[in-house]
Amino acid sequence: MLSKSKIKLIQSLNRKKERDETGLFLVEGNKMVEEALRSDFKVVTLIGTSAFLGSHPSELTGIMEVVETNKEFINKASLLQNPQDSIAIVEKPDSSEINLNFDSKLYLSLDFIQDPGNLGTIIRIADWFGIDTIICSENTVDVYNPKVVQATMGAIFRVKCLYINLEQVFTTIDTKKIPIYGTFMNGENIYNESLTKNGIIVMGNEGNGISDSISGFITKRLAIPTFSPNNEKSESLNVAIATSICCSEFRRRYPN
Amino acid sequence: MLSKSKIKLIQSLNRKKERDETGLFLVEGNKMVEEALRSDFKVVTLIGTSAFLGSHPSELTGIMEVVETNKEFINKASLLQNPQDSIAIVEKPDSSEINLNFDSKLYLSLDFIQDPGNLGTIIRIADWFGIDTIICSENTVDVYNPKVVQATMGAIFRVKCLYINLEQVFTTIDTKKIPIYGTFMNGENIYNESLTKNGIIVMGNEGNGISDSISGFITKRLAIPTFSPNNEKSESLNVAIATSICCSEFRRRYPN
Repeated sequence: MLSKSKIKLIQSLNRKKERDETGLFLVEGNKMVEEALRSDFKVVTLIGTSAFLGSHPSELTGIMEVVETNKEFINKASLLQNPQDSIAIVEKPDSSEINLNFDSKLYLSLDFIQDPGNLGTIIRIADWFGIDTIICSENTVDVYNPKVVQATMGAIFRVKCLYINLEQVFTTIDTKKIPIYGTFMNGENIYNESLTKNGIIVMGNEGNGISDSISGFITKRLAIPTFSPNNEKSESLNVAIATSICCSEFRRRYPN
Repeated sequence: MLSKSKIKLIQSLNRKKERDETGLFLVEGNKMVEEALRSDFKVVTLIGTSAFLGSHPSELTGIMEVVETNKEFINKASLLQNPQDSIAIVEKPDSSEINLNFDSKLYLSLDFIQDPGNLGTIIRIADWFGIDTIICSENTVDVYNPKVVQATMGAIFRVKCLYINLEQVFTTIDTKKIPIYGTFMNGENIYNESLTKNGIIVMGNEGNGISDSISGFITKRLAIPTFSPNNEKSESLNVAIATSICCSEFRRRYPN
């Protein structure tokens, strides 16, 4: 049985305020919950049907609270359109423990990404291309927003997201050693420019691109050229698509 | 005033059967409707508020039917969550007039893409990378599905989609001159393989990839390598993301 207070807690985690206050977030869908159970993240409460819990006996040890319930209660509590057989309440990891190593690694930095689906997709892309940490502006959508969590398809358990004042970080960076790349409509063709193994790739807001306060820090302005004969008519690329093309081009040049 | 029968027609265009019977499809949102008005497509009925119609006087000539109405009726008719000030009913173009020129051009071919958002995004990618025609399997989601139309952000008016039996087309192709590329988890690293200026890139279904009946036609099996240290754990890339990386790599090598 799922208590009323537990249902209320689950639904409250749809709001950032409650996630911040409790330090918890929500993971839904059997595949995602399985990823949470296998990850380093701490599952505080696991809610599942008897069939779901019965098929994961070894993963249940160490979980503070396991609640067996039926589909009806899961449907009641779930934020998904098509609820499955399990819900996990998970502890947000401590982001103060994230180490940044700009000298040798490649990072993504997001300047005011608003759409949960875009952030989730970008985290999935980072995971694929071996970028282990994303540096987000404080106004970027919360990575623990349930829509973001679901859109990562599990990559959220492998890629760290740090929310921080980007200007403060960029001010401290020696850009001779650590290039800060950014994509602009009028930047230089990414295919022809020299790139580096390490550095930061900044991706800007869906509607407005990289903000004025950040663009001054960019040491190399890149563009993904269009090959459309209707050049001027083509909409700009979606930010997740642009991110994937940038990551692909950096990793193509520096696979190791 | 918007008649009841017109509202009924608009809403019926959410269904493929009605779109096929009438030869019409729906375009919503002011920016999309403006793109429709500027395109070669034939707008059969334009519905708009007086403010919208008043601001597009030059585009109204030649439209068979212009209906001025108020926001209330647009809200009633619209399939969007946030309706705007205009709706266009547009004629589907005649796909029998599409010329394929495999000898010199690059094509995308979609084998059972199911998700409307993915198809819309792929059309937008094709537009950006100058691929003017997409060859879709007959079971790929309908390009005139309103969700696909909206997701193209206007690219639907520039990129043609042909629905056809892929096996029949591929059987006729001289693959010595016209390579058929496909992406597979165990294909060859796309960054290291020789590619050509012309040919066909086949993208497979979201869950199952390229179908068995099609994979036999693929002359070059490609893969987008992962750079994740958790190699085996990473989910495959979303099909639209994979499409963008493939298109980027082909155009990088053959920009002209």
